[in-house]
Amino acid sequence: MYDFTHAPKRQGTDSVKWHVEPGELPMWIADMDFATAPEIVAALQAKLELGAFGYEEPQASYFAAVASWYQQVHHAQADPSWMTFTTGVVPAISAIVRRVTDIGDNVLVQAPVYNIFYNSIENNGRHVLASDLQYAAGQYAVDWADLEAKLAAPLTTLMILCNPHNPIGKVWTKAELTQLAELCLKHHVILLADEIHGDLVLAGADYTPVFSLEAELRQNTITLVSPSKTFNVAALHAATAIVPDPALHARVDRGLNRDEVAEPNLLAIPGTIAAYTKGAAWLTALKQQLWANHQLAVEFIQQELPQVRVASGPATYLMWLDVHAYGHSATALTQQIRQRTGLIVSDGTVYRGNGAQFLRLNFACPEAMLQDGLARLKRGLAE
Amino acid sequence: MYDFTHAPKRQGTDSVKWHVEPGELPMWIADMDFATAPEIVAALQAKLELGAFGYEEPQASYFAAVASWYQQVHHAQADPSWMTFTTGVVPAISAIVRRVTDIGDNVLVQAPVYNIFYNSIENNGRHVLASDLQYAAGQYAVDWADLEAKLAAPLTTLMILCNPHNPIGKVWTKAELTQLAELCLKHHVILLADEIHGDLVLAGADYTPVFSLEAELRQNTITLVSPSKTFNVAALHAATAIVPDPALHARVDRGLNRDEVAEPNLLAIPGTIAAYTKGAAWLTALKQQLWANHQLAVEFIQQELPQVRVASGPATYLMWLDVHAYGHSATALTQQIRQRTGLIVSDGTVYRGNGAQFLRLNFACPEAMLQDGLARLKRGLAE
Ligand SMILES: Cc1ncc(COP(=O)(O)O)c(C=O)c1O
Ligand SMILES: Cc1ncc(COP(=O)(O)O)c(C=O)c1O
Repeated sequence: MYDFTHAPKRQGTDSVKWHVEPGELPMWIADMDFATAPEIVAALQAKLELGAFGYEEPQASYFAAVASWYQQVHHAQADPSWMTFTTGVVPAISAIVRRVTDIGDNVLVQAPVYNIFYNSIENNGRHVLASDLQYAAGQYAVDWADLEAKLAAPLTTLMILCNPHNPIGKVWTKAELTQLAELCLKHHVILLADEIHGDLVLAGADYTPVFSLEAELRQNTITLVSPSKTFNVAALHAATAIVPDPALHARVDRGLNRDEVAEPNLLAIPGTIAAYTKGAAWLTALKQQLWANHQLAVEFIQQELPQVRVASGPATYLMWLDVHAYGHSATALTQQIRQRTGLIVSDGTVYRGNGAQFLRLNFACPEAMLQDGLARLKRGLAE
Repeated sequence: MYDFTHAPKRQGTDSVKWHVEPGELPMWIADMDFATAPEIVAALQAKLELGAFGYEEPQASYFAAVASWYQQVHHAQADPSWMTFTTGVVPAISAIVRRVTDIGDNVLVQAPVYNIFYNSIENNGRHVLASDLQYAAGQYAVDWADLEAKLAAPLTTLMILCNPHNPIGKVWTKAELTQLAELCLKHHVILLADEIHGDLVLAGADYTPVFSLEAELRQNTITLVSPSKTFNVAALHAATAIVPDPALHARVDRGLNRDEVAEPNLLAIPGTIAAYTKGAAWLTALKQQLWANHQLAVEFIQQELPQVRVASGPATYLMWLDVHAYGHSATALTQQIRQRTGLIVSDGTVYRGNGAQFLRLNFACPEAMLQDGLARLKRGLAE
């Protein structure tokens, strides 16, 4: 019913990912080489028929679409009054860092984590305080004692959580999230959950939105959601901040407005409404394809690249590959792979923590392209 | 060749302007009740065919399109290396206020002026220092002595100029702009020119882009341009910062990036390129229609509303109406007009300066709608 065998041709367009030399194959930045849901494209086309594209503001239909998606897909209740539209998850993170913390404050993160968190913190003169995830036998876990000590530091005012976690693909359990939220509340640290990958749990139990934790805990949280990863519409520039506590909601809302990241472009609203009201069937098919790709990659690596360990969990379309057995830095390996084969993967170093022994591979592409990428990876890593 | 007789039906959409009660007629916010150029819509439609909407960055073709528009339409040279893409003029103003001034600094404006300037200054903890324009016999002029004294104040670090000037429709001459830029340079004040209305000079001599002033002067300036007013695409979210001095350009560029207002949505680049490379014929036709509307409104007011004085110049599609003869505040008159007739005009008070004796009327709509609006204005102002 949906076509996941063709990658739209993006060479020569304004795509960041496909701004490559001829013959190169980009498997780094987190957008997919699949066309988005035709239901979304149809809604975008319909919007263009309006013809006049003046100032817009989201109406009740937008917030109702977000709420019904979380209700139906994730069995989680979000009240429309908790929501503010924003132009993206990263724009919102940066604005929230500026709004709810002060210059010089600590913002806690769990490394290795999505590298742009560091930009949002450091470009605004705040301090990154990392509670590194503990890594053993190909698995990551929270060091709770370290985490609590760092949350308890008086200048720690915000924690940015990645739920599920990019780049390790981990789906935090409800018990873990509850424990985290309790510690944040106890130590007066606002919990900001980036849930952009929440719809992309490919196997096992679904993720738990932080706004669905029990009332006392969720009052201290800000959750950011978006159709952008789910439906491959990063350039739709649409996301939603969900803030259950009215006073915190007002602060976040003003921060997003002051920083001019709260107004929708002409496609953001119809695109999001279409995604959330008509995108479920496409997403089911996408997730099957992504899981098949995941299995294909895991099998290839096990058979052909025994020195590489797949260390990622069942969420996101990003594979986290432990390459420490090669005895070279991820930076050196990334360069070698690109030079030898044209394959571009992410150097794990940018995610900090123990990332310098990892590569991150984006497997959201047609199977033939993935096979090409895996073959290049093998050639690139050969001694 | 182009249709300026039909207003796209925007009631019940996400339009801010048309979020009105049945029967109301909005002539306040600055977007037009004309469909944009079909050449632009065609480019937007073509972009949707790509299907995959990941991260984008503007390429050389974007900056070349901006440069060629200013070259061909305004005979002004802008080097692509001076330019940074931004999501809008107001987002850029706010980011620039944060980037090039400090908390508590004075930002100079010439009141009455576009009210959102005040938000960008005050929401960021800076101080508005107004050098009010002098008003006499229905004309505005700069008070040069007052302006220089205020530029010379040690905490004045930025001046925001509106060129041409909303809401008074004035086209600043090259001589005036040169004098202004000289004073800014002399007193170490960066000159930020908002030129969003630059393409909408309906009669008389064209406007002068600030980036085209002589080299020494333009090194101290930042110019913001956009197709958004010109082509009725405010929700395209596309604008360009033009900063000739490399060091100042680097600062502005980083500020726009830090504040997350430097990345294009999926339509911003093709929409702007189409506007600037294929939109000239439509703009010529639009300006004819706008000038006809302007004349129609002026004649109506002269004949039917002799107590109202048209105080605006030949730029923008906004008419600045002096209503002091009624002996009531613009706030009271605006409310009375809306209550009696459903016509919504802008209360001049928000523009500060002597705005409290003015109404602002947006005349960018089909002639029949304008006639309806003028008839309502007359009823609304009747004793
Ligand atoms: C965890 C995470 N957050 C945010 C983003 C980007 O969000 P946006 O494009 O909405 O700014 C990404 C993209 O890779 C991501 O992985
Ligand atoms: C002088 C001026 N600057 C900026 C804007 C808005 O710019 P943007 O929509 O690009 O933020 C307007 C809209 O009315 C305006 O009149």
